Amino acid sequence: MRILLVGATGTLGAAVHKALGARGHDLVTVARSGGDLRYDVTDPAQVAEVYDRAGRVDAVVSAAGDVPFKPFRELTPEDYLAGFRGKVLSQIDLVRQGLSRIADRGSFTLIAGVLSREPIVTGAAASMANGAVESFVRAAAVEIAPYRINAVSPTVFTESLDDYGAYFPGMPPVDLAVAAQAFVRSVEGAQTGQVYIP
Amino acid sequence: MRILLVGATGTLGAAVHKALGARGHDLVTVARSGGDLRYDVTDPAQVAEVYDRAGRVDAVVSAAGDVPFKPFRELTPEDYLAGFRGKVLSQIDLVRQGLSRIADRGSFTLIAGVLSREPIVTGAAASMANGAVESFVRAAAVEIAPYRINAVSPTVFTESLDDYGAYFPGMPPVDLAVAAQAFVRSVEGAQTGQVYIP
Repeated sequence: MRILLVGATGTLGAAVHKALGARGHDLVTVARSGGDLRYDVTDPAQVAEVYDRAGRVDAVVSAAGDVPFKPFRELTPEDYLAGFRGKVLSQIDLVRQGLSRIADRGSFTLIAGVLSREPIVTGAAASMANGAVESFVRAAAVEIAPYRINAVSPTVFTESLDDYGAYFPGMPPVDLAVAAQAFVRSVEGAQTGQVYIP
Repeated sequence: MRILLVGATGTLGAAVHKALGARGHDLVTVARSGGDLRYDVTDPAQVAEVYDRAGRVDAVVSAAGDVPFKPFRELTPEDYLAGFRGKVLSQIDLVRQGLSRIADRGSFTLIAGVLSREPIVTGAAASMANGAVESFVRAAAVEIAPYRINAVSPTVFTESLDDYGAYFPGMPPVDLAVAAQAFVRSVEGAQTGQVYIP
């Protein structure tokens, strides 16, 4: 398949790139810096340009989402709005604009995360965003068939434990390579409206 | 207890008013029209005024949230943003601003809804908003103790079946009076970070 991979240069994006590439797929990568297409998908106009330049794709995979992390009492309305735009609205727009452009029976795979269900200190905006993405995916699925949409909602990555492990005491991490397989499952599988928890 | 009830004039708000009143609580009601205080809580400046005028309260209860319902392909980024501001950011702001103002060990009870987990046609923005509220509540709870926060996430109301029943085929409705008891449970109980599904 020809696959548009958004957020291709991030920690997870690189692992997803590797996993999908190993399956023989043809990837068009998007990132703010690096990637085949350098765009910021939080801007709907840039999402349109991404699709114009990418041409027909069979699947859209997103591993991109920026959310502010701060102690609860320091989070402002602007922070929540930034998290909404950075991880929720941007990914919704990939679906909204992608529907008229992707191949028949194409699929969308969005990124959410464990904080939707398992909160951590400083993570209220991230939890909000992940919960929004997961519920959006379940809802979009019932209206966009035969196009498909799923989310991947991983816990902390084994490779990120040095940086973030202190926020996830006693929680089993997941290897990036394992998390990336959830994207393979979404892209090549037949399910829709699922939230995969690798 | 002295309780600030936001969205007091809506279908659910009126039932919550009745249920909390029957428990002997002293209610200060807020609504855009009607209510003791007439304010729009989607505006942070008005939330501040609400708290200024309400004085010390022991609990904040919200039954207010506006989200656009449209077929998926008609929902615009502005619609999602309106849903976010109307049901997510407004309720987050009640908590954010309320933390420094409510009584010791006070509580917040927010409204979400069944669409977070059970999607319906035209409900993608509502699902997104409800999922955001539920995950936010779980996250806020771990940082605001000993203050408490819960969400109530009801299915369609029995009293609303004439209007909305067609969107919920075969799904058991809940009586408004039963749904309202979930607010009583949140306000008078000891739990936090819960999503009550009446």
